[in-house]
Amino acid sequence: MRLALSTFAILLLTASIATAEPGNSLPSWNETESKATIIAFVESVTDRSADTFVPESERVAVFDNDGALWCERPVYFQLLFAIDQVNAMKSEHPEWRTTEPFKSVLAGDFQSVAASGEQGLKKLLAASHTGMTSDTFQNAVREWLQTARHPTLDRRYTELVYQPQLELLDYLRTNGFKTYIVSGGGIDFVRVFAEKVYGIPPEQVVGSSVEATYESRDGVPVIVKQPQGFFLDDKEGKPVGIYQHIGRRPILAVGNSDGDFQMLEYTTTGEGPRLGILIHHDDEDREFAYDRDSHIGRLSRGLDEAADRGWVVVSMADAWRKIFPSKPSAE
Amino acid sequence: MRLALSTFAILLLTASIATAEPGNSLPSWNETESKATIIAFVESVTDRSADTFVPESERVAVFDNDGALWCERPVYFQLLFAIDQVNAMKSEHPEWRTTEPFKSVLAGDFQSVAASGEQGLKKLLAASHTGMTSDTFQNAVREWLQTARHPTLDRRYTELVYQPQLELLDYLRTNGFKTYIVSGGGIDFVRVFAEKVYGIPPEQVVGSSVEATYESRDGVPVIVKQPQGFFLDDKEGKPVGIYQHIGRRPILAVGNSDGDFQMLEYTTTGEGPRLGILIHHDDEDREFAYDRDSHIGRLSRGLDEAADRGWVVVSMADAWRKIFPSKPSAE
Repeated sequence: MRLALSTFAILLLTASIATAEPGNSLPSWNETESKATIIAFVESVTDRSADTFVPESERVAVFDNDGALWCERPVYFQLLFAIDQVNAMKSEHPEWRTTEPFKSVLAGDFQSVAASGEQGLKKLLAASHTGMTSDTFQNAVREWLQTARHPTLDRRYTELVYQPQLELLDYLRTNGFKTYIVSGGGIDFVRVFAEKVYGIPPEQVVGSSVEATYESRDGVPVIVKQPQGFFLDDKEGKPVGIYQHIGRRPILAVGNSDGDFQMLEYTTTGEGPRLGILIHHDDEDREFAYDRDSHIGRLSRGLDEAADRGWVVVSMADAWRKIFPSKPSAE
Repeated sequence: MRLALSTFAILLLTASIATAEPGNSLPSWNETESKATIIAFVESVTDRSADTFVPESERVAVFDNDGALWCERPVYFQLLFAIDQVNAMKSEHPEWRTTEPFKSVLAGDFQSVAASGEQGLKKLLAASHTGMTSDTFQNAVREWLQTARHPTLDRRYTELVYQPQLELLDYLRTNGFKTYIVSGGGIDFVRVFAEKVYGIPPEQVVGSSVEATYESRDGVPVIVKQPQGFFLDDKEGKPVGIYQHIGRRPILAVGNSDGDFQMLEYTTTGEGPRLGILIHHDDEDREFAYDRDSHIGRLSRGLDEAADRGWVVVSMADAWRKIFPSKPSAE
């Protein structure tokens, strides 16, 4: 009897999913070709009678975070966190007044910090993100997210997620996809808010990372973040991060910059149905407009090759009815 | 109407789970204190009315693989794979005739191979597991698992999984746990068979690993396994691997050797209800008997401290009605 009831229940659940109208799942998406392509793709991989059908276990969707799920201007929000942390710690580090990138950080010169490149960022991240237990770090992030506000948009950072993308994540999960974040940002940073804000649990967050050690502090076993063994989950690092964490090639990848190029390439060169999506920041009025000449979120090769590769370029100005959630999404 | 049907379906599913008798879920477990403790723990964390209740998202269970989910004698099966690979490649490497650990491998001297320690194993693994694409490697493992047979037990290796543990994995999943493997063995090796044999998908396998690169070979983007950046997911490495891959502390950990000590310690020193389980190989008749003096799967500190730490020591001889599945489990 137990089996019979379960089978009946599964049939009912299946029926209820089948009757969901996809258009209603993406209310903040205008009726554009982008939206139609996304829906057609999802329907093609979930239609059991089609030869494009993909079993649920292989419906892996990967999303970049900065610029793809939330805003990345004026600079990556994690960098703003690092800057606030360095300012909070400056009295213990007088040498920072004369050494880069700390000197620029303390002067509030964001452009110079960004221009200090990978090496500069590594120093800044090492100072603000390592040498502490994972719990201490995550508590600092949590506290910062609760209080810090964006310099121009006057919202908390977790309120600067893109409403259409929240709907896309939900729509994919409703259709049996497992949704992942694959971020150039720090895995520990993103994990603090990804579950609450995006519905993506910590184990489905892939990101840049440092080595960690298992130690006993005051008799309590803890994880300590170390200032070495840096893995950059960006560009060629993204397929590697996906391989190490997920162990299968995604069938859907969503990014917004050339840092996502290899992730979309890796995803869309696999066999069977595949979809690559690039979010194009072309909405100066409601958010920001930038692409080929931007320090942050530069998108150039992606724009050049999208058409040939069959990737969808989503114009934020045209495709999105709204940008941010109406109400704070992560109180 | 859609919502009403879904709600009805969920009620039915819940009812069908609630009527499952836990005893029936573990038919290969004898009625011992070990079994009673496991069931009491699972009931305590799934009982919504109890203050020991744990939400599903936090019901993370981690299992060691070698000696905990499948047999590890005469040596780790992955080592037997590496040995077969080295033998297959020996004509291309005349230098192996005079250098360890290859010399012992080619002589079939398992004890010397095991005694070559971590450094020897690393050389053997680098030679047999790296410098190739991930697809090439996984195909080699797949082919080997389909043909190779255990030297004394006359079964294929995937038929040497423990039937009571397959039931325990199912029982936990039925009760909302997410089950993970956290193995000292290679993540890529275990991922080849974990989904089919244990019902554990690749993204829920944590293990030892090497660096990987993203490259184009003949115009096709591939992942290539590199002979450096070795991460040993054993002892102190297990909590680190859990932290990096899962990002939350498990509430249940199952191991069988002192290589699992830190994983059980990390798991059971968290707040709230926790359970640590050690499988004790004390069944010479049906499997193998070994603990304190064994090269492979040495269990000494765990036996000394289990009682004080509240860990369950499962006697294979007493607690398990059968050891291996009756029929091949992975045809």
